[in-house]
Amino acid sequence: MKQNKYDHEHFFAKYSQMPRSVQGLQAAGEWPAFRSLLPDLNGQRVLDLGCGFGWHCRYAREQGAEYVLGIDLSSNMLSKAQELTNDSAIEYRQAAIEELKLENGSFDLVLSSLALHYVDDFQKISDAVFDCVKAGGRFVFSVEHPIFTSIADQDWIYSEEGAILHWPVDHYQHEGQRNTAFLGEQVVKYHRTLAAYVGSLLNSGFQLEKLLEPQPTEEAIAKYPAMIDETRRPMFLLIAAVKPAR
Amino acid sequence: MKQNKYDHEHFFAKYSQMPRSVQGLQAAGEWPAFRSLLPDLNGQRVLDLGCGFGWHCRYAREQGAEYVLGIDLSSNMLSKAQELTNDSAIEYRQAAIEELKLENGSFDLVLSSLALHYVDDFQKISDAVFDCVKAGGRFVFSVEHPIFTSIADQDWIYSEEGAILHWPVDHYQHEGQRNTAFLGEQVVKYHRTLAAYVGSLLNSGFQLEKLLEPQPTEEAIAKYPAMIDETRRPMFLLIAAVKPAR
Repeated sequence: MKQNKYDHEHFFAKYSQMPRSVQGLQAAGEWPAFRSLLPDLNGQRVLDLGCGFGWHCRYAREQGAEYVLGIDLSSNMLSKAQELTNDSAIEYRQAAIEELKLENGSFDLVLSSLALHYVDDFQKISDAVFDCVKAGGRFVFSVEHPIFTSIADQDWIYSEEGAILHWPVDHYQHEGQRNTAFLGEQVVKYHRTLAAYVGSLLNSGFQLEKLLEPQPTEEAIAKYPAMIDETRRPMFLLIAAVKPAR
Repeated sequence: MKQNKYDHEHFFAKYSQMPRSVQGLQAAGEWPAFRSLLPDLNGQRVLDLGCGFGWHCRYAREQGAEYVLGIDLSSNMLSKAQELTNDSAIEYRQAAIEELKLENGSFDLVLSSLALHYVDDFQKISDAVFDCVKAGGRFVFSVEHPIFTSIADQDWIYSEEGAILHWPVDHYQHEGQRNTAFLGEQVVKYHRTLAAYVGSLLNSGFQLEKLLEPQPTEEAIAKYPAMIDETRRPMFLLIAAVKPAR
């Protein structure tokens, strides 16, 4: 049974109030970096793994994508996505990322934003994505950075006065389940090493095109001074991988 | 003026007593992982950046390399390397890695073991290596992991009783000089993000072939139980990159 936290009413209500849920991509700090990894979307067939409210799906269409399939496990998410979407070239489908069955070579781009650290077997996902993209197609995704997921607490170490001292790393090589707190509720995530993410992609046959550990822009820090702390440790890992053209 | 710490007598004396200096590759915990990244060395022309005592140079020749050039800034290192080497196909040359001038396409493999975190401008090195390897040739190197180099202290956080609590990360996005202690002396290292290492290689034109964050083997932990702590955070980053065959 796959975790389907977003269909828990209370959790979903809280998620729905997050800036990135209400305002979409512009409110996501890592979006400029993520966008920089996307190819020209004009005429492309795009799959979004863990599409949530569908912000990336709609963005892809705005950029000229021919067809977009968004999949998510949560019917709450998909209802909201559908409500925000008025576009017959975007299809939403309820499915677990891990159990996806898709036609080989049927997409130009598979993207996934902050969903794959909820998935246990990344090699399986990577292999499935490799099969369903065309030669020359891409897999672009963001996950919580392995430095961020190594300890389940996912919090800074503070001084007695409450100042941030540093970010703690432990259990790094022990991959697997982490019982973390998110929006005040228990959520299961999966920690993997950075080498594991990269290794799985290369094993599948992908070439690594870009790897980013984004930090807030100077503009963002000027606007929200607390964001300076985001330069102290990497929170997100973004990767673009390409299926070699034959 | 490049840092040439290994020509400081006292420092060199201490370095010379380290297990990996006396016993060579077998005493280096990351060696099995490093070796796994090397191609078949038979008939290859090999360059070793920061060759130290020449252990990797001699290994390459044992594996059939046709010619090996080891470069190092330290004449102490090179004297010792020469003393340990009886092989006219191994050449040692005193030079700073950053100032190396080599003929284009003159090597099959460039390797470097734990030297490049002493170098400020990795992009420059990566570009120079790209030029001096043949199409289809490789760049294989190890460095201290960005998680290990982010804080200059390079030490665990301990409890009052002296037990390891966790590894601290801070200043991750602030690349540049770190004044660290090594063998009781001040040494200058350069911190870079993992994204920077990978990004420079891809910028140069390399394809990423493998990326490893090695951990001690179960065998090693059984022999040296304290090595279990090495699973708590990554200490080394190992990368193999290939220059695409045209």
